[in-house]
Parts: sequence; structure tokens; C-alpha cells
Amino acid sequence: MTSEELMRRAVARAEENVRSGSGGPFAALVARNGVILGEGANEVTATNDPTAHAEIVAIRAACRTLGSFRLAGCEIYTTCEPCPMCLGAVYWARLDRLYFAADRADAEHAGFDDGFIYRELAAPPNARSLPMLRLLPEPARAVLELWRLTPEKVPY
Amino acid sequence: MTSEELMRRAVARAEENVRSGSGGPFAALVARNGVILGEGANEVTATNDPTAHAEIVAIRAACRTLGSFRLAGCEIYTTCEPCPMCLGAVYWARLDRLYFAADRADAEHAGFDDGFIYRELAAPPNARSLPMLRLLPEPARAVLELWRLTPEKVPY
Repeated sequence: MTSEELMRRAVARAEENVRSGSGGPFAALVARNGVILGEGANEVTATNDPTAHAEIVAIRAACRTLGSFRLAGCEIYTTCEPCPMCLGAVYWARLDRLYFAADRADAEHAGFDDGFIYRELAAPPNARSLPMLRLLPEPARAVLELWRLTPEKVPY
Repeated sequence: MTSEELMRRAVARAEENVRSGSGGPFAALVARNGVILGEGANEVTATNDPTAHAEIVAIRAACRTLGSFRLAGCEIYTTCEPCPMCLGAVYWARLDRLYFAADRADAEHAGFDDGFIYRELAAPPNARSLPMLRLLPEPARAVLELWRLTPEKVPY
């Protein structure tokens, strides 16, 4: 399938997600060389999972297909510019490229917090609306050091 | 349990995750009034899921416990400052407060990309290492507008 066909498919799925009452107006898919490896729509309210955004669902599905936690060589198509959670997931999944349709301003206009969360992450921690408090850094650092010095670890 | 007891428990779980070879040196838990509702350690390599960071696992577990996609009134304890993916998830879950131990610099020193991903998200889209390409914004905007005008939707 071409890039435009893949995006049209995602948009149709997003529309179906709204019409069926299954969740938010977002869908995504992961493809390699035009072949779909995983797809998903927003499932937050249907599954009581605030992390079940379309991109996360699609990435998890593609990883199941490949039996891998890395999607290098693949592309993600999403009907909206990813929120910080989903864009972070795209980086962790090592996707090669991202296609998006609507953007964060469109999402904000429809009532979503994407813009707010981008602004929060860009702010210094002590200027965020979320209180972030530090506790016991030393023992946690020791665990990170244990990892760094563990030769048989699986890096990701 | 006190905040310090909860964090010590998370740190112990992170250490166990490294020693058992189950995954990265991170653990997290969600609590309300000192009672644990969900906990988790990093499961990326064990489950082939690049989104299975400790905070995401703990948030999903707490949401299952409460049967809700909202964790307002709850706090998250994480052994390391969350990466952008996980901090975004904390906002979407509507958690009241976040306690962390190590920070992104500690994570970077141990070989993780948290700092890199923070810098990528803060950069303008066209300055990122990830190519982001726009396709078909209009039909995707129409789906967002359909959502906005759907009275019986479930906001999240």
C-alpha cells in the first residue's frame, strides 16, 4: 500500500472508532515496505487504560507481530501528531519515520490535552502543575550502577 | 505505608528486576493514602514491548484495580525521573503527585535515552532526528470535528 492509502486506512479506522463509541478520534498503524504489521485505535475508555492511545496500541501490536521490542526499518502512520507519551514511545520503538495528519492544535480544539502536556514537559519540573518530589536518590542510583556493570543485560 | 517505605519497596523491586535478568533497572508503584493499587518493573525485553516501562506497567495495573482510566487522588512512586513517554502517561492518568529517586542524568549515565528523547521533544519537529511528515490533514481534522460534535462521547 502507498503512504496515502495507509493514512486513509488509519483515518477510516479513527472515524469508525468515534461512530461505534469505542473511544477517541484517533487511529494509527505501523508498516514496513507498505505492509501493515500492527494497527490500533484509541482504547482508553473501552479498556480503562489511559495509556491505550492509538500509537501505543499499534506499536504494541507490531512488536507482537515481529516478536521484537524494536521497530527499526518501520514507519508509523497516525491520524494526529502524537502526544508526548506517544512520541516518546515512537523513539523507544526506534521507528524510522512518522507520518501524521491532524496536529496538536487540532487535537486541542477537539478538547484534548496534547498541547497542555507538551507545555508541561517543556517547563522546568518545579514550574509544572504536577508536583514532583525527590526521595532516596542514592539507593536508586546504586541500582542503575548495578545495571551498568551487569555484563549479561539485554540493552533496549 | 509511608512515602519512604513505598519508595524503598520500588527500589528493591528495581534491583530484583536487574538481578533476575527480567529487564531494566526501574520499578514504580501507584498508591492512594499509602495503599498500593498497582506496581510494576520494566518489562521491555521480557515482553517485547517498548512501552512496558515501569510507570506504564504500574499505571495500567492501578487502573485495572480501580476499574477506571483516571487515577486522580493517587500518587506514583518511580525509582527514576520518568522519560517523556511515562511523564505523559502520568498526566493522562491524572495522577496527583509524583515521587522519583534517580533522575534523567543518572539514567543517561547508565546508558538510557531519556535525556536524548527530552531534547528531541523540545526541538522543533523539523530539527528532530525522527523524520515527521504530514499527510492528509483535512480528513483527519474532520474526524476530530465529528468527535467534538458527538454528544454521547466519553471524554478522557
